Amino acid sequence: MIRGMTAHGISPDRIQPEHFHYEEADGVATIRLNRPDRLNALTFDSYAELRDTFAALRTRDSVHSVLLIGSGRAFCSGGDVRDIIGRLFNVPDSTLVAFTRMTCDLIENMRLLEKPIVAGLNGLTCGAGAVMAAAADIRVAAKSAKIAFLFTQVGLCGADMGAAWLLPRIVGLGHASELLMTGDFITAERAGEIGLYNHVVEDDALEARAMELAQKLAKGPGMGLAVTKRMLNAEAHMSLRDAMQAEGWVQAECMKHPDYREAFEAFTEKREKDFGKNR
Amino acid sequence: MIRGMTAHGISPDRIQPEHFHYEEADGVATIRLNRPDRLNALTFDSYAELRDTFAALRTRDSVHSVLLIGSGRAFCSGGDVRDIIGRLFNVPDSTLVAFTRMTCDLIENMRLLEKPIVAGLNGLTCGAGAVMAAAADIRVAAKSAKIAFLFTQVGLCGADMGAAWLLPRIVGLGHASELLMTGDFITAERAGEIGLYNHVVEDDALEARAMELAQKLAKGPGMGLAVTKRMLNAEAHMSLRDAMQAEGWVQAECMKHPDYREAFEAFTEKREKDFGKNR
Amino acid sequence: MIRGMTAHGISPDRIQPEHFHYEEADGVATIRLNRPDRLNALTFDSYAELRDTFAALRTRDSVHSVLLIGSGRAFCSGGDVRDIIGRLFNVPDSTLVAFTRMTCDLIENMRLLEKPIVAGLNGLTCGAGAVMAAAADIRVAAKSAKIAFLFTQVGLCGADMGAAWLLPRIVGLGHASELLMTGDFITAERAGEIGLYNHVVEDDALEARAMELAQKLAKGPGMGLAVTKRMLNAEAHMSLRDAMQAEGWVQAECMKHPDYREAFEAFTEKREKDFGKNR
Repeated sequence: MIRGMTAHGISPDRIQPEHFHYEEADGVATIRLNRPDRLNALTFDSYAELRDTFAALRTRDSVHSVLLIGSGRAFCSGGDVRDIIGRLFNVPDSTLVAFTRMTCDLIENMRLLEKPIVAGLNGLTCGAGAVMAAAADIRVAAKSAKIAFLFTQVGLCGADMGAAWLLPRIVGLGHASELLMTGDFITAERAGEIGLYNHVVEDDALEARAMELAQKLAKGPGMGLAVTKRMLNAEAHMSLRDAMQAEGWVQAECMKHPDYREAFEAFTEKREKDFGKNR
Repeated sequence: MIRGMTAHGISPDRIQPEHFHYEEADGVATIRLNRPDRLNALTFDSYAELRDTFAALRTRDSVHSVLLIGSGRAFCSGGDVRDIIGRLFNVPDSTLVAFTRMTCDLIENMRLLEKPIVAGLNGLTCGAGAVMAAAADIRVAAKSAKIAFLFTQVGLCGADMGAAWLLPRIVGLGHASELLMTGDFITAERAGEIGLYNHVVEDDALEARAMELAQKLAKGPGMGLAVTKRMLNAEAHMSLRDAMQAEGWVQAECMKHPDYREAFEAFTEKREKDFGKNR
Repeated sequence: MIRGMTAHGISPDRIQPEHFHYEEADGVATIRLNRPDRLNALTFDSYAELRDTFAALRTRDSVHSVLLIGSGRAFCSGGDVRDIIGRLFNVPDSTLVAFTRMTCDLIENMRLLEKPIVAGLNGLTCGAGAVMAAAADIRVAAKSAKIAFLFTQVGLCGADMGAAWLLPRIVGLGHASELLMTGDFITAERAGEIGLYNHVVEDDALEARAMELAQKLAKGPGMGLAVTKRMLNAEAHMSLRDAMQAEGWVQAECMKHPDYREAFEAFTEKREKDFGKNR
């Protein structure tokens, strides 16, 4: 086992990662990749801490949404060429599997976190960084945020960390096939056109815009948003009939939640609704 | 049980709803939501009648396509705030489930109706109205037809009436996540860009354009269109191999239908084809 | 059994079709439909040879990508009206099934060929031609390449040769429903907007551009590209969790392939990478 891939002692009541920046305000947890001199390349340590942080956030009661963003010119350039790729030769097969399991667990933990994740793509986004972006719920990107799923360029397959599941469901099979097979970069404008980015904004407006969206979602109905995300994950491979059955049951459950009454009362009383008091 | 959710005596040979307008011409059934003063908000009664009407249309031989449209400034503003939302507090759990079952059955009946449904989105479209729009096969929208899946805004989850199954398959997972999580309105232009609307036209051209499409589809091959819709529903969760097997069988069946010969003969005789005579 | 639907003696070490043009260069197999006077309409013979050719290419070691293109003004106008449609009346049911099985096997063989297929849509594309285009991995189209899935126009269902599986996954359920139900043509510009075409170029630039992409892909990592395509096929109907598990395993396997080391060494040695030597 390579050091760094094991647990780092992050728990719901103690999220103090060493390898990226973490802070909370207004119900938003900001996760900021913070190695700008290396274009925020991931290391074994930062992978493991991200994996454990997204798991811990599930039951972190003070957090209602997440902003994932980078420092400097890049969002994330993927696994570090020297620190990760260079160290994955001449290792036992079991180490390779342990590594890919860790990377997949990071993405799976993002999808299993039933709180909205906004990716603020502040610049270069590639490799594992592109998959993290795809695993977020909503992507707000700077004009400079070119993106590539460059796995075939490094001799690997495009089915990395869930990219072959996520990307076709976001941009369709045609665009996904080209992006995953060629590994080429596309511009932010193009990524916006094909539905990969939800919004493209000026570089200097990126962080404010992404944070604004994360803050707005943090004020949303906790159970309603959790169920929305759970069902989006689940219904991707569900029959229409099963989905209709499931949605009928879960929405009936949501109608028993005080958030439903709060919205109605705020409407009739012509005041702002406050889902926060029901948490 | 809340009155209005039960059957209203609509059957294939007697479609006379009381809570919306219904008429037939040229093989097109026009369903017109008709409470313009309430922005065509749905009531328990109109929900139930819509559910039963879409079921009855399955075996209504005079109908070959459906136009679903609204009167006035709105297509449909969803469940009525007072008549529905206000009455779902302090009811037994079984009533909540009966209500969500009814709403899901409406959407499921739209998808199980093996005749094309064109939604003519003449204006404001939100909540249950947005899901009905999504459950139609083709959406033609007026420029004023802003749309919102606003369930989280009323404290509920976005997985309402099948929205979390339908919307990602129409606009992709990224746009669907944002629409369902924020509940925000988007313009018709934006809805067209992301594939939610098939066509956006001037407000005063909407009804004619939507009707024109419904009439054209009503002249199409009955079995061919029925199988197309059935397979679109089914193949959404089918493996490639199973789908290839299924399509091979069903197309061979369609080749035994007189519509296939009619198209060929019309082509060789250089005349208009007439699938109507084979009904 | 109609003559022409049986095997034509094509094998991995002998790809010499009689009913379309075939050549290889630089690792690219070019399949050129070559009946320009009939807009490259398919016959029983060309269907069968295409089916067998795509199967044979799986284990043809000299071929690393495919360019599928047409001669003259059309890419492919589908099954020949006289040679195919006209001969499918008054045949035993078993012949109909044998025919649709053959057509579906052609498409399935395209998807099972774990090498990238670029469709160069040089002009008119309809019917079976449109489905072949959709079954390719990447579509580069000339401005003149209007396209229609015109099955309902000939009295059949839109679920032909896998179209009802492929098209919704490429352009979304809304656009797919309209294209399959109406059978109407759309322009290349529109096809580009909705994600059906990856790139639209000037007519006289089409072949060079499509070939350039095929050549580039032919230089890619063989195993990486094969696994990418296999997973895109498979993950279309896989749960998120199953997909994450599968991608973890397959990427670990790819990391054992010499292409992975080649890319790393080329990077550190600041030279062009050469995956070709690992074939």
